[in-house]
Amino acid sequence: MSVNRSTATLVDVPRGLAGVVVTDTEIGDVRGTEGFYHYRQYSAVDLARTRGFEDVWHLLVHGALPDAGRSAAFIAETAALRRLPEEVRAALPAVAAAGARSGPLAGMRTALSLLGAAHGFRPVYDIDADRRRHDTLVAVAAVPTLITALYRLGRGLRPVEPREDLPYAANYLYMLTGEEPDERRARAIEQYLISTIDHGFNASTFTARVIASTGADVAACLAGAVAALSGPLHGGAPSRALDTLDAIGTPDRIDSWIRERVLAGERVMGFGHAVYRTEDPRSRMLREVARGFGGPRVEFAVEVERRVEAILAELKPGRELHTNVEFYAGVVMELCGLPREMFTPTFAAGRVVGWSANILEQAQDSKIIRPAARYVGPPALVAVPERG
Amino acid sequence: MSVNRSTATLVDVPRGLAGVVVTDTEIGDVRGTEGFYHYRQYSAVDLARTRGFEDVWHLLVHGALPDAGRSAAFIAETAALRRLPEEVRAALPAVAAAGARSGPLAGMRTALSLLGAAHGFRPVYDIDADRRRHDTLVAVAAVPTLITALYRLGRGLRPVEPREDLPYAANYLYMLTGEEPDERRARAIEQYLISTIDHGFNASTFTARVIASTGADVAACLAGAVAALSGPLHGGAPSRALDTLDAIGTPDRIDSWIRERVLAGERVMGFGHAVYRTEDPRSRMLREVARGFGGPRVEFAVEVERRVEAILAELKPGRELHTNVEFYAGVVMELCGLPREMFTPTFAAGRVVGWSANILEQAQDSKIIRPAARYVGPPALVAVPERG
Repeated sequence: MSVNRSTATLVDVPRGLAGVVVTDTEIGDVRGTEGFYHYRQYSAVDLARTRGFEDVWHLLVHGALPDAGRSAAFIAETAALRRLPEEVRAALPAVAAAGARSGPLAGMRTALSLLGAAHGFRPVYDIDADRRRHDTLVAVAAVPTLITALYRLGRGLRPVEPREDLPYAANYLYMLTGEEPDERRARAIEQYLISTIDHGFNASTFTARVIASTGADVAACLAGAVAALSGPLHGGAPSRALDTLDAIGTPDRIDSWIRERVLAGERVMGFGHAVYRTEDPRSRMLREVARGFGGPRVEFAVEVERRVEAILAELKPGRELHTNVEFYAGVVMELCGLPREMFTPTFAAGRVVGWSANILEQAQDSKIIRPAARYVGPPALVAVPERG
Repeated sequence: MSVNRSTATLVDVPRGLAGVVVTDTEIGDVRGTEGFYHYRQYSAVDLARTRGFEDVWHLLVHGALPDAGRSAAFIAETAALRRLPEEVRAALPAVAAAGARSGPLAGMRTALSLLGAAHGFRPVYDIDADRRRHDTLVAVAAVPTLITALYRLGRGLRPVEPREDLPYAANYLYMLTGEEPDERRARAIEQYLISTIDHGFNASTFTARVIASTGADVAACLAGAVAALSGPLHGGAPSRALDTLDAIGTPDRIDSWIRERVLAGERVMGFGHAVYRTEDPRSRMLREVARGFGGPRVEFAVEVERRVEAILAELKPGRELHTNVEFYAGVVMELCGLPREMFTPTFAAGRVVGWSANILEQAQDSKIIRPAARYVGPPALVAVPERG
């Protein structure tokens, strides 16, 4: 039987539930002091270096890397799910028109919610594990189609139909621009997308799991996750790091610009992370990717990183402030021709696989996530006053 | 600075975060052993007996009951917000067509998400408290318009434009049917809506607060809350209690039907609650409301309640199983002419005020809700295998 919450002992925990273990997970973990994170038993960075997006997607939702035959089958299975149902296509122009005001994640949230309804997604507790997994594949496969269609509609352009012969990442760039991307750009975005799939129990992942714990359908969980991702405290906004590069402008201005900001107590966007006390492994990988492109913008970014880390070490000794994932993610996405307002939706196009794995794991648990609050207002049982 | 989560001590707590205090609140509380719940310092049932919906709405989001002048102003202010923006109207037919498959809460989730974007809602951390409150008023005021429009469009009927001269509850029934409801029905639904506004830290309220803690906009928080409400474990599905009445059919079948279910270990929908160990105060109030209508259906419901409670006391001694809010909520909504598929959306049309109050309270906190998970999979740092 359920606990009688009003008389059960309330459990006090750190603010914001920091460190509070909500669940066991086999999906992955982040080791902040080691500068290491993993999906299942594999280093996420190694996966990004050696595998395609679909292989890692398969690892997350099926629990194992596919062999070559299984990999080809999974690529074909998911590529066939990229087209949108008619009700979604019909509504997208209105969603795009509205989304122009609240930003692209508001549009993505609405579109995913609508997509699930159009596919008749049912509560995860009412369907078996195969059907649940299929629903996540349907949703993930459609995300690039949805976000590129909303982007193009917002600019008066016709959406580009998905191509089944391109991998997930290349097809994403193709639908955005209408042109097939070169191999280097497609692979750079693929590596970025792999690196963003999962990263501990962040607020959007947690939101997806709370909703899944009620037994709601996959689209309900994903729409909630996108909603949480849209909050400014969530992180995942690589365009802010590019704003730092732009504000500095030229190498000779690095020192004065940074010292001014730090002495004024301002945060330097693109630097510092809540978990990593050493270099962010995602930064390291994405710096490599950026250097593969070369050119003055990349050289400037590397120089800014080098100088800012030195200045922060001098002004804030012992704090170990390094570039975070946003810094080189912004540089890489810019090199690949992505417009800044698509940076966070692109992040979400990778993270949606991690949310999916978390929804599927949560659905195996039958216990709703339902914490408590402590009433601290005026004592109750006051008579309701007569209307004045 | 943030905690280094990977080395910080993880805090183990009861499963599903049961009893874990996420926040202090001044919104209200549920006292399970006393059979009492309150909004701010007032008994929720007393408020439902003596006040209109808008007065209680004002209490929740402004923190105090309005005097007569303020009450009239708040009614006028919110009634003027009932019409939908053009982008939302344009998209609703497609949303309704899709919603026919995943149910009315899927449509409500999509429509609220779209509404916020159409109004250009901005992150709660980027706007002041007045603007935040205004955004919640815009969203709540539009909920009856959205859910009745979706219902009617799903049946090939034209949506009914809102009327500003009717109170929230009466206008809701009016937009559903196209006919002005009689006073008794309007007041019965108003009392039901007031009774559902808030009820402790349930999963949908918690979801709204997690999303709000990232700083996301009000529509993001509400869409997530609706998503959580749609889960079968959340509760709030009064139509299931009517299914019990229908399955029993006639008074002479009560005993055999109930004994059969209980002995088979099945739950009897409409009876039993996770928190209340005594009569649910909402049941008590709604029974009164139902009795005000009278008639054979109400007499049958009262008889079913009496017999089922007696049989449950005999077969499950000491368990204190009583009717829950769903039982008489279903009866009252049926008496008011609401179709069963609108029961849960109607519940949500009251609860959205409680979600709003929780979002506004959470927005005053600057700490993201971001718990932890414990990795229990195979040890990581395994080399990624070559592709087979």
